[in-house]
Amino acid sequence: MTVFFERHRPMLEAATAALYARGFWTPFPEVPSGKIYGETAKADGDATYAALLAKPFDLPGHPESQRLGAEISPWGPELGIRYPTAEPATLIAAARTAAPALAAASVEARVGVCLEILQRLNGLSFVMANAVMHTTGQAFPMAFQAGGPHAQDRGLEAVAMAHAEMTRFAATARWEKPQGKAAPIVMEKHWTIVPRGLSLVIACNTFPTWNSYPGLFASLATGNPVIVKPHPSAILPLALTVRVAREVLVEAGLPADAVLLAVDEAGAEITKTLATDPAVKLIDYTGSSVFGNWLRGHAAQAQLFTEETGVNTVTIAATDDFAGMCDNLAFSLSLYSGQMCTSPQTIFVPENGIETEGGHLSFDAVAEGLASAIDRLLADPARAAGVCGAVANPATLARVEAAQALGRVIRASAPLAQGRSATPLLVVPEGQGAKAAEDECFGPVAFIVPVADADAGITRAAALAETKGAITAALYDTDSARIGRAVQAFARAGVNLSVNLTGNIFVNQSAAFSDFHVTGANPAGNASLTDTDFVAPRFRRVMWRMPVAA
Amino acid sequence: MTVFFERHRPMLEAATAALYARGFWTPFPEVPSGKIYGETAKADGDATYAALLAKPFDLPGHPESQRLGAEISPWGPELGIRYPTAEPATLIAAARTAAPALAAASVEARVGVCLEILQRLNGLSFVMANAVMHTTGQAFPMAFQAGGPHAQDRGLEAVAMAHAEMTRFAATARWEKPQGKAAPIVMEKHWTIVPRGLSLVIACNTFPTWNSYPGLFASLATGNPVIVKPHPSAILPLALTVRVAREVLVEAGLPADAVLLAVDEAGAEITKTLATDPAVKLIDYTGSSVFGNWLRGHAAQAQLFTEETGVNTVTIAATDDFAGMCDNLAFSLSLYSGQMCTSPQTIFVPENGIETEGGHLSFDAVAEGLASAIDRLLADPARAAGVCGAVANPATLARVEAAQALGRVIRASAPLAQGRSATPLLVVPEGQGAKAAEDECFGPVAFIVPVADADAGITRAAALAETKGAITAALYDTDSARIGRAVQAFARAGVNLSVNLTGNIFVNQSAAFSDFHVTGANPAGNASLTDTDFVAPRFRRVMWRMPVAA
Repeated sequence: MTVFFERHRPMLEAATAALYARGFWTPFPEVPSGKIYGETAKADGDATYAALLAKPFDLPGHPESQRLGAEISPWGPELGIRYPTAEPATLIAAARTAAPALAAASVEARVGVCLEILQRLNGLSFVMANAVMHTTGQAFPMAFQAGGPHAQDRGLEAVAMAHAEMTRFAATARWEKPQGKAAPIVMEKHWTIVPRGLSLVIACNTFPTWNSYPGLFASLATGNPVIVKPHPSAILPLALTVRVAREVLVEAGLPADAVLLAVDEAGAEITKTLATDPAVKLIDYTGSSVFGNWLRGHAAQAQLFTEETGVNTVTIAATDDFAGMCDNLAFSLSLYSGQMCTSPQTIFVPENGIETEGGHLSFDAVAEGLASAIDRLLADPARAAGVCGAVANPATLARVEAAQALGRVIRASAPLAQGRSATPLLVVPEGQGAKAAEDECFGPVAFIVPVADADAGITRAAALAETKGAITAALYDTDSARIGRAVQAFARAGVNLSVNLTGNIFVNQSAAFSDFHVTGANPAGNASLTDTDFVAPRFRRVMWRMPVAA
Repeated sequence: MTVFFERHRPMLEAATAALYARGFWTPFPEVPSGKIYGETAKADGDATYAALLAKPFDLPGHPESQRLGAEISPWGPELGIRYPTAEPATLIAAARTAAPALAAASVEARVGVCLEILQRLNGLSFVMANAVMHTTGQAFPMAFQAGGPHAQDRGLEAVAMAHAEMTRFAATARWEKPQGKAAPIVMEKHWTIVPRGLSLVIACNTFPTWNSYPGLFASLATGNPVIVKPHPSAILPLALTVRVAREVLVEAGLPADAVLLAVDEAGAEITKTLATDPAVKLIDYTGSSVFGNWLRGHAAQAQLFTEETGVNTVTIAATDDFAGMCDNLAFSLSLYSGQMCTSPQTIFVPENGIETEGGHLSFDAVAEGLASAIDRLLADPARAAGVCGAVANPATLARVEAAQALGRVIRASAPLAQGRSATPLLVVPEGQGAKAAEDECFGPVAFIVPVADADAGITRAAALAETKGAITAALYDTDSARIGRAVQAFARAGVNLSVNLTGNIFVNQSAAFSDFHVTGANPAGNASLTDTDFVAPRFRRVMWRMPVAA
């Protein structure tokens, strides 16, 4: 059954070529435009979403012992959707039952299924945008992009990488060893792809699809049944995903239970029980280092792929476009209220100020420039809501509140008109606050930290990446020698660096097929989306060989 | 400095092509022939080896606080060589000091160094053969092959795989994102290969070079300084290797301390101290699962690549060449006295016997056939010594002695004329012995275990691989349907299967560039020589990106 594979072969081939070339490429348009997705796509998606609310979610054939679900949109309304769920042992048993058929399917069959799932998810992007918006608090345009096409890109990237890796070596070979004047020894050899076991994907609240698709699709393509464990506050995007996956699996003659949904409730999570089951051999996890450490300590039977806590920095050494820099950073700091794993947080500025195209600016002038740029960006309430979105977790608001006490407030945080919200707080840390600026403070909080000079800023930023973890680092500078030193320092610290971003490209953005997301080389995560090491451990090769006549 | 890379580029390209095609290929001739290696190569190698004995080993510039070394040849004489060594902290510090320059070297510089080391080691194959022979107990021809060219093949395989992986994705890219009618966003992106940290290679007594070269060369090629920790009984082969490596490093303008030797003494091993050092991020280990488990529990800071304990099986279902089968197995059981990680141990035979080309044979007739074939093979004392070699560890002799009590002895073990030796013991386990046959009994001991029928044998053999680990499995059968079932069963158990081997090819043999050695899919090891997963985790990619004018 490789109809799906043949159907999507051109997409797979283009994706694979893009992986190697690492230029811009995507098959899934990021613009929520009727011209691309159909003139009624937005209305249809809204209606489909509305029809899901306040009802039991239909997941045909899924193991079910009870219904759970208590999602509340950060924009206000309760979703009221009740999802089927079952005991961890039941889910594990169902996945184990599905495993042999999934393992026995050809590489092309499994990859074809993954590609078809992604294509159908793309068709659901407007529904998904609503689902992501109302579980994460992202504004609609971002929820569409990040929850839809960009997540699909990351899924496709993982499928292409898995396919490339599974087909990297010959699947059969004739091994012919010369024996001098005697006849050669000849053997035929055959290799089978053997999956590792069950795969558990532990998703997060803020990017339920973007952060889970890579693991989900990498595991499924390589033949491991996947149990998707959504965050209790962001179930719907993954319930939709699992439903599509199960439909496609069945159409391909494979067991629906090769993809399962493990719904639980806040305070009664089943994650630990699932993660420590001996049958679970792969765990993809996005979340805090606290639980990451727990998994490392308790789920040693599984290979762990993580994205965890980090402190992303900006070092402002100099600029020849002060306004452009401030506008760019204002957007990066405001976008989804700092709730991206790529959002900058701690900004190092020389205490004696910086050189700009308009002359010298003091430390305070730089700080004020950033504050003003944020004010400008968020002056229009509708635009502000569109950029900042809403805050996923009420604890984040409390964190913003507390952060005001960490030093001199350059820009106060304030709620917006819509949703649970908070604009960026800018603080120059003082006293105990200096230490706080060196830990992750998740949400719309940025620290502007004075340093002796630009090199000191680079050194401290790199050290933070190395010791606390970081997914992004940004640098503004006009001195090419110093930029060169910074490139080396951040490389040693294992963090991706963006230099002199202005205009419509932001440090927060990580593009599939080009940017490897998370390096795996610092504490912010051990896995990189999507490099070889993200797919290769998910399967093994087993051979049989037999002599044949020379 | 890429002179070495350019010099060996054709070999690298051929090796890489061989990796993918998986047919027979080697650049290092396995025949210890004067026609290939030079008419005086054997005599020169013997003389060079003799000149090393009873002297301090010269390792210029190596950290040294004392001299250690107490090797005794399993063939008799003490080697009397004293090696420089230093405290673990000193070795770690030296490796850390070497790390930045090694990391900063280009991929081509490091890969060129590795290729040159291998080429020079090939030129030392006759010296190495002596060194391996007198530390492992292997007979000279095997010590030449396994310790020299075959180990070099495995090293080259790892270098080629590491090179392929480091150059798999574009190192720079122009990322150009269309913006409708506006100018595109254009970024230049650059990726740097960042090594993981320090690498510790823990070698074994029996195959000091073959089992350590993959890890050593994979780590060095990817920029990680390597501390080579030899078994206290098999230091010389790795001391020679480290000396060559350091010479080549220096010639390439790189720090000699990028490869270090960590000599210790039995009973005062420094392995645990080295393995748990926070700077050590990669550990390659060959040895017992007992210490493997210790490493898993205590060296969690490092990525672990292991080859451990296992129970290799033979299932005899039927044959159309009984004598050929028995001769083949006799050699496999006798070769290096069962001290290969690939040696078969537990042989399942239907209790009612098997069908052969000469008609039905009872269980006892099959067992006697194996015993007779061993007797024939070892009848000539010189040939017997050449096949069996000597026993590396005195504890192995005690294990053979004890194994006689595990059941009905079909063939008694006996010493040979030369060295510490023991010919294969064949036992039909009885009573408590049945359980012993399902655990590794390292050395020249084989169990012939009656099973209800051939399918039961396949089931039990596969179950043993899955639960106890196995590196090889062999099957003799004439029923193609049953062979098909066995292929599936052993694949599920994660063990490579050899079917109907007769003549001059043996289940013990694992050829670089074709056979992946160890699957990583059962408890006999988590790493496979050399697949992608063996090299990909040894480095990370870190990017810097910057906008450029469209």
